[in-house]
Amino acid sequence: MKAQLGGDEGKHKFVLKTPKGTRDYSPKQMAIRERVFNAIITCFKRHGAEVIDTPVFELKETLTGKYGEDSKLIYDLKDQGGELLSLRYDLTVPFARYLAMNKITNIKRYHIAKDFDIAGQFDPMIPDAECLKIVHEILSDLQLGDFLVKVNDRRILDGMFAVCGVPDSKFRTICSSVDKLDKMPWEEVKNEMVGEKGLSPEAADRIGEYVQLHGGLELIERLLQDPKLSQNKLAKEGLGDMKLLFEYLTLFGITGKISFDLSLARGLDYYTGVIFEAVLLQQENDHVEEPVSVGSVAGGGRYDGLVGMFDPKGRKVPCVGVSIGIERIFSILEQRVEASEEKIRTTETQVLVASAQKKLLEERLKLIAELWDAGIKAEILYKKNPKLLNQLQYCEDTGIPLVAIVGEQELKDGVVKLRVVATREEVNVRRESLVEEIRMRTSRP
Amino acid sequence: MKAQLGGDEGKHKFVLKTPKGTRDYSPKQMAIRERVFNAIITCFKRHGAEVIDTPVFELKETLTGKYGEDSKLIYDLKDQGGELLSLRYDLTVPFARYLAMNKITNIKRYHIAKDFDIAGQFDPMIPDAECLKIVHEILSDLQLGDFLVKVNDRRILDGMFAVCGVPDSKFRTICSSVDKLDKMPWEEVKNEMVGEKGLSPEAADRIGEYVQLHGGLELIERLLQDPKLSQNKLAKEGLGDMKLLFEYLTLFGITGKISFDLSLARGLDYYTGVIFEAVLLQQENDHVEEPVSVGSVAGGGRYDGLVGMFDPKGRKVPCVGVSIGIERIFSILEQRVEASEEKIRTTETQVLVASAQKKLLEERLKLIAELWDAGIKAEILYKKNPKLLNQLQYCEDTGIPLVAIVGEQELKDGVVKLRVVATREEVNVRRESLVEEIRMRTSRP
Repeated sequence: MKAQLGGDEGKHKFVLKTPKGTRDYSPKQMAIRERVFNAIITCFKRHGAEVIDTPVFELKETLTGKYGEDSKLIYDLKDQGGELLSLRYDLTVPFARYLAMNKITNIKRYHIAKDFDIAGQFDPMIPDAECLKIVHEILSDLQLGDFLVKVNDRRILDGMFAVCGVPDSKFRTICSSVDKLDKMPWEEVKNEMVGEKGLSPEAADRIGEYVQLHGGLELIERLLQDPKLSQNKLAKEGLGDMKLLFEYLTLFGITGKISFDLSLARGLDYYTGVIFEAVLLQQENDHVEEPVSVGSVAGGGRYDGLVGMFDPKGRKVPCVGVSIGIERIFSILEQRVEASEEKIRTTETQVLVASAQKKLLEERLKLIAELWDAGIKAEILYKKNPKLLNQLQYCEDTGIPLVAIVGEQELKDGVVKLRVVATREEVNVRRESLVEEIRMRTSRP
Repeated sequence: MKAQLGGDEGKHKFVLKTPKGTRDYSPKQMAIRERVFNAIITCFKRHGAEVIDTPVFELKETLTGKYGEDSKLIYDLKDQGGELLSLRYDLTVPFARYLAMNKITNIKRYHIAKDFDIAGQFDPMIPDAECLKIVHEILSDLQLGDFLVKVNDRRILDGMFAVCGVPDSKFRTICSSVDKLDKMPWEEVKNEMVGEKGLSPEAADRIGEYVQLHGGLELIERLLQDPKLSQNKLAKEGLGDMKLLFEYLTLFGITGKISFDLSLARGLDYYTGVIFEAVLLQQENDHVEEPVSVGSVAGGGRYDGLVGMFDPKGRKVPCVGVSIGIERIFSILEQRVEASEEKIRTTETQVLVASAQKKLLEERLKLIAELWDAGIKAEILYKKNPKLLNQLQYCEDTGIPLVAIVGEQELKDGVVKLRVVATREEVNVRRESLVEEIRMRTSRP
């Protein structure tokens, strides 16, 4: 072992790769991620959220049975001594487990810069409207391009299935077929409903008529008058709340990018009320009638029953939440940065401490310690006698805006030469004013 | 399933717990963690570090054989299809795998707010000194109390073992015995060396004399003259570099808290040069001669051979790094907060948008959307007609400093009543000046 580490015999046939389905993030990729995380966390904090964290794995029984047809996505861990563990698949189920375990009935929280939820018994649709406002703020802030937030309600879907003649027992499986409408044409979805799932063609056709509908307040009003839907208790409740939601969204000034869409279903079993999903719209050069969706970047909804499933006495805690698709957003921004050849800085260094002559390592170390202790972000090259040209080149390569140059003469005069990399301008700054001067020159406008 | 989620039948015998060895973090705990992370990341950025990230698990073969006697700490994942995976145990081995895989020879990076490393071929001890400066800055900044950074060098240890008569084959195992000196008295460590590991009592006694030594530059000078150590090539190299290191640390002004300590060994097999460990010193009321250590909060060292082990051609990338013991630091701060009954805010909300009369939900929603869109952190209670007293109480409970109160008269006059929670002072602010007024009153001094 020692020989392997110390000597040259350390050649070994290693497979150099990350596990399947995982990846490393380089400094450039992390810089882009940091932008995304900053935008999201800033928004969550703006809305007064606390933050919690839960382990990356949970007891297997905590996770099973909560995802419906998606439950195949659970990964198990090797038994480490008596407990069956699985990697968490989302943050909603661990959050519900956390609330039940700690008997919390009211909280507004976020979870690793990704999931935001409001738990508690409140007046209808106010927290739901805030979740949509949050999606709107984050997607606007990230400048991902044009987007649309589709909204529907589990109760409207269930009511619609009932009035179309879908048997109760088929609600969930038909719902998961409807969920595929953003990727498959109606004809294929209908074939799945009728062929695979045994629905009558007439019921499927009736569903087909509803799921084409999308719009705003006027569509909600129209459906509230719909002779069939208006007779269904669940659908009526859902539509009433949808109307209230749109009134609040109007006050927030964001209805322009929100669409009530009867084809939105969302697969996860735990939703009980409002559901929503944000999609980016393709930037087409030629004008097409309907903008094409390029995939979901955020989603969420109301899940009033999940916490009660964990509570020994079945006490319910109504919840509504939003999850941001950070991996997809990150891929989009990464591709865009690659395409634009934009230069991304991977550090925030304000100044390089350099010298023009030899034998000044000690002086560089003294100066940089002064700067660090004053909170300035500073670097030096780790060489005893680096060439000035190499030091300037390092600033060009890494985007450091300033160079503080120490030299024999400057030391005698009690000054430091400050060079602006972009303009090559050089000024002598008194040593006691250097920190202030660097701060002034590197503060954001 | 639907019935379980929607109805009251959802009672189920769930074991409500997190997996063994894991825990949840509450908002209060996360607020303390955020302070710790902020101090650490700010320091890493001040030193010009980039950030990378790697998966939480690695191929098992990447991790095995790198930790020596610590390798039992590796946890395996259940086979997910052809790859044997293990949870990473530290961030150093994944970092070395990342460098070899991407053929990177120069990088200064940090890894999830915890590990900082400088990789590359540089002039001796400059990066090593920066790592110690970083430990000093972080521990000072976190105000954990008095601390001491113990420093040693693997080459000095190995040279010492050689001149004491330890056979080559026993270096690593004797080293791991020495590593226990911070927890066990010398007599027990000696018993382990002689009884369990078969070292001669004379060799053990010779080690015993060296490992009592600790000090600064004068001790290094003395050992450079030591008749036995000075004859050993490795020890001489190590001591020469240690002298250089202390010269740099003197320039950084931090030698007061650094101790060259021959008993410091550190267990991990991959270290090849300087090693160090920071310990907190107990705050004793009665004066004791030697301050008592309450455990390690940071550590690190030089590992010049690890990247080469992963490189197919054995190319070496010298590295030195530091790892911060965030879990231990967090526990210490958490206990201290509990003991002090300090009130920790878990949100950053600047203002609560409130109303004194009924039927003003719409006006509250309009105003809060204006504030959010201007970047103000704001909350409302999710009730149609909340009582003013409840709204003020919410601010008291959560530490929100300001209340913006809308009322019929204020709406007519185009003003908002701004109330300072702490002083109960109330002023009318023109609506167009509200954002500026809130910013001014909540900016940190």
